[in-house]
Amino acid sequence: MAKQKKTPRPKAQTPKGFRDYFGIEVVERAAMLDAIARVYHHYGFDALDSSAVETVEALGKFLPDVDRPNAGVFAWQEDEGDKPGDWLALRYDLTAPLARVYAQHKDDLPTPYRRYAMGPVWRNEKPGPGRFRQFYQCDADTVGAPSVAADAEICAMLADCLETVGIARGDYVVRVNNRKVLNGVLEVMGLDDQGQRDAVLRTIDKFDKVGSDGVRQLLGKGRLDASGAYIDGVGLSDAQAEPVIAFLTSKGAGVAETLANLRAAVGGSAIGAEGVDELEEIAALVAAQGYGTERIDIDPSVVRGLGYYTGPVFEAELTFDILDEKGAKRQFGSVAGGGRYDDLVKRFTGQSVPATGISIGVDRLLAALRAKGQAQVAAPGPVVVTVMDRARMADYQAMVAELRQAGIRAEVYLGNPKNFGNQLKYADKRGSPVAIIEGADEQAAGVVQIKDLVLGAQIAASATLEEWKERPSQFEVPRADMIAKVREILDAHS
Amino acid sequence: MAKQKKTPRPKAQTPKGFRDYFGIEVVERAAMLDAIARVYHHYGFDALDSSAVETVEALGKFLPDVDRPNAGVFAWQEDEGDKPGDWLALRYDLTAPLARVYAQHKDDLPTPYRRYAMGPVWRNEKPGPGRFRQFYQCDADTVGAPSVAADAEICAMLADCLETVGIARGDYVVRVNNRKVLNGVLEVMGLDDQGQRDAVLRTIDKFDKVGSDGVRQLLGKGRLDASGAYIDGVGLSDAQAEPVIAFLTSKGAGVAETLANLRAAVGGSAIGAEGVDELEEIAALVAAQGYGTERIDIDPSVVRGLGYYTGPVFEAELTFDILDEKGAKRQFGSVAGGGRYDDLVKRFTGQSVPATGISIGVDRLLAALRAKGQAQVAAPGPVVVTVMDRARMADYQAMVAELRQAGIRAEVYLGNPKNFGNQLKYADKRGSPVAIIEGADEQAAGVVQIKDLVLGAQIAASATLEEWKERPSQFEVPRADMIAKVREILDAHS
Repeated sequence: MAKQKKTPRPKAQTPKGFRDYFGIEVVERAAMLDAIARVYHHYGFDALDSSAVETVEALGKFLPDVDRPNAGVFAWQEDEGDKPGDWLALRYDLTAPLARVYAQHKDDLPTPYRRYAMGPVWRNEKPGPGRFRQFYQCDADTVGAPSVAADAEICAMLADCLETVGIARGDYVVRVNNRKVLNGVLEVMGLDDQGQRDAVLRTIDKFDKVGSDGVRQLLGKGRLDASGAYIDGVGLSDAQAEPVIAFLTSKGAGVAETLANLRAAVGGSAIGAEGVDELEEIAALVAAQGYGTERIDIDPSVVRGLGYYTGPVFEAELTFDILDEKGAKRQFGSVAGGGRYDDLVKRFTGQSVPATGISIGVDRLLAALRAKGQAQVAAPGPVVVTVMDRARMADYQAMVAELRQAGIRAEVYLGNPKNFGNQLKYADKRGSPVAIIEGADEQAAGVVQIKDLVLGAQIAASATLEEWKERPSQFEVPRADMIAKVREILDAHS
Repeated sequence: MAKQKKTPRPKAQTPKGFRDYFGIEVVERAAMLDAIARVYHHYGFDALDSSAVETVEALGKFLPDVDRPNAGVFAWQEDEGDKPGDWLALRYDLTAPLARVYAQHKDDLPTPYRRYAMGPVWRNEKPGPGRFRQFYQCDADTVGAPSVAADAEICAMLADCLETVGIARGDYVVRVNNRKVLNGVLEVMGLDDQGQRDAVLRTIDKFDKVGSDGVRQLLGKGRLDASGAYIDGVGLSDAQAEPVIAFLTSKGAGVAETLANLRAAVGGSAIGAEGVDELEEIAALVAAQGYGTERIDIDPSVVRGLGYYTGPVFEAELTFDILDEKGAKRQFGSVAGGGRYDDLVKRFTGQSVPATGISIGVDRLLAALRAKGQAQVAAPGPVVVTVMDRARMADYQAMVAELRQAGIRAEVYLGNPKNFGNQLKYADKRGSPVAIIEGADEQAAGVVQIKDLVLGAQIAASATLEEWKERPSQFEVPRADMIAKVREILDAHS
């Protein structure tokens, strides 16, 4: 008999690029998703929970983020024994599944179909610091509404969502741009070659990083980037490149000035004029609903997603400063984006279906609230009933049941009760506000000891001996008064 | 140049065995998960959201349901270019990830660690009617508590969860059995051969289907099953098989009688006696917390999971009758199960870590509430503001904003407004309680028309002409009274 090889122990590790979320992190995210869902619902949007797994065929390859050209999906082939199975994949966003759902169920769905969806999505890409391969999205889209009134509604709803989760008015702005205006600019430039148009689109996408001078260089001969590498340019002349720069920098002092600048930039292009008209209409619609430009603004410098969307494009940016890893001040930046994409459903049905929507990056939004110190403070842990006599567990569990029935979060210590110090250490690790002690003496006297752990910690940290004596943090009360005393302590700390 | 082949359109279909959930289904499930999470939290359990993707190595193959021996996982290999990548898989339950999480993070977690988790899990198995490859679980487990007080707590919490989501007391029972008692029985039988023990375990698992006579035949020579096929037996004599039958049928009129029957069945086996002691302790602990046997009962006929768990086993069954597809009455059956499994973490660390928990099948529980007619009735749709004049969209959106600010779910019609009938059909499909109409005449007169669609439908369905005249379902009110009138109608129908 061959010597048996011992199976090595499996490594207890998440796969690379994945992580676990604990306690308050989970509760905070659930609360935020719930708050956003309420706003979406209030606007008449209905919930949709599509399957996390799609056929690769249905999913297609429509990743909206052009800065992640190599972003992939997690995919595998079905094992059907005799014949080759379908390729399946985890959804990489909530928009591609919406297109599939709408094409599959359109006869049963109202038109227009307003839907919201929230849940994890997966990207098979190189993980980086703070960049995970599973993250949450929270989307709302309107399918089948050609009017830009739908876009205006989305922008208003996005502003409401941000305020609902705790971003103060003035700390965010929803910026709106329009792909059609850019198309008009390209038309004016006489760029008919699709390759050149795509090259211009890719270049514009770098506007955030390199600014207008950088874009000018990249549209022309090229540019030496920060790493010292030379990036080849698109090869346009300065004159040819000028309309693009005019477009990107056309934001004026007010909406009217911005629109006038845009009209100048698109010259006689019909599609360009249509784009400017749409922006004008959106501005008028949100203004009529009371949203000023400090909340929703027309801003042609928003370029993220311009290559992907077909009409209006939205981006919500947080405008307050945070300190980055190096201690430098910078704006928090984008937490949500979206726009109009009229061709997604067409892949399935052959018919163009107008659609517009937004996706809120919930994890980034939570990070923003934490950076502002506005995230929920850690909720207190449960009241811990300690175990002084293992044989009396039934009594302790009955005490806990009594506390819970009184609406108080509570638990009995379930580790080895031998070392009482470990029980208090446990209560500390759990963030417990109160510990309850009932040993043989207390039981005989019909009392319980109630330790105020919050006060105890305060006293231990700072009190003088005098204060210590004057402010006891442990109370002996009749067993019948346990609930009342615990509630008194909890109320004092809340 | 070769003739270009047209790419065929992708099929708009979920993969086989997957489905989408719409509107009220999503909201109902979210509400149920939320209600259960509150109970778990109230018992001192903390939230955990582990990644949906695990390494196949970490996941292992520990599917608890012995009736699904071929259940598989969705797995794929990481593409790391030069070297073979890890195999990754979607989690098939929430327990295997918990073992990995605990082994990975145990230094940072309290001991005992009480955690709850909820979310989708995936099974790569043949889909069937009503059986999907993605479904929701909602688990609570205590890791690191050896005492059966932890098991008793789980049972009490499970009963509380069921009542919280709307299962009335008397309509469910949490049944408790113990794997150690069965081990004692096997010891008494003198079955030392692991193969034979496994065969007995597999046979016991069929008790639900074939009853005690069927089990007796299967433990002996074999049995002709319903399809006419002959199933080979384990080959035990009737005398040898008798302790198993005694165990399975040992439920008496009360807990004391059941325990006495079990003591007789395990004879002099030490492990068997330990198992019966544990059941006795659990019964005493839940009784002390006020849970009678109509809520939590000792029942040795619970066999599901006995092969997987190492100590106490729990199952929550709904005891009311429903009508099956054929119109026959049957009990709804199991909606939650769990037990003690002391070896899961050992795979990673080499040390045995006691753990116990439950998993609630949320989708089955929702189906049960629907079967009882207790599920949430469909919430009303939004108030729909119709569009009489496309050029006045800003006014209509402002009306909608006003309604929303008053706390009323509302939307403007965003389809093609040309055909007014389509707008009312849309409102009907949306389940809207109220439609608002403001054409040129109304605007000039400073009024709006408010249609009570619920009353309108009632009248249309049943009213005589007289009643029709007497009970108008459309009201003309001054524009300033719009909110008040809408609220009045909504209140009348709620």
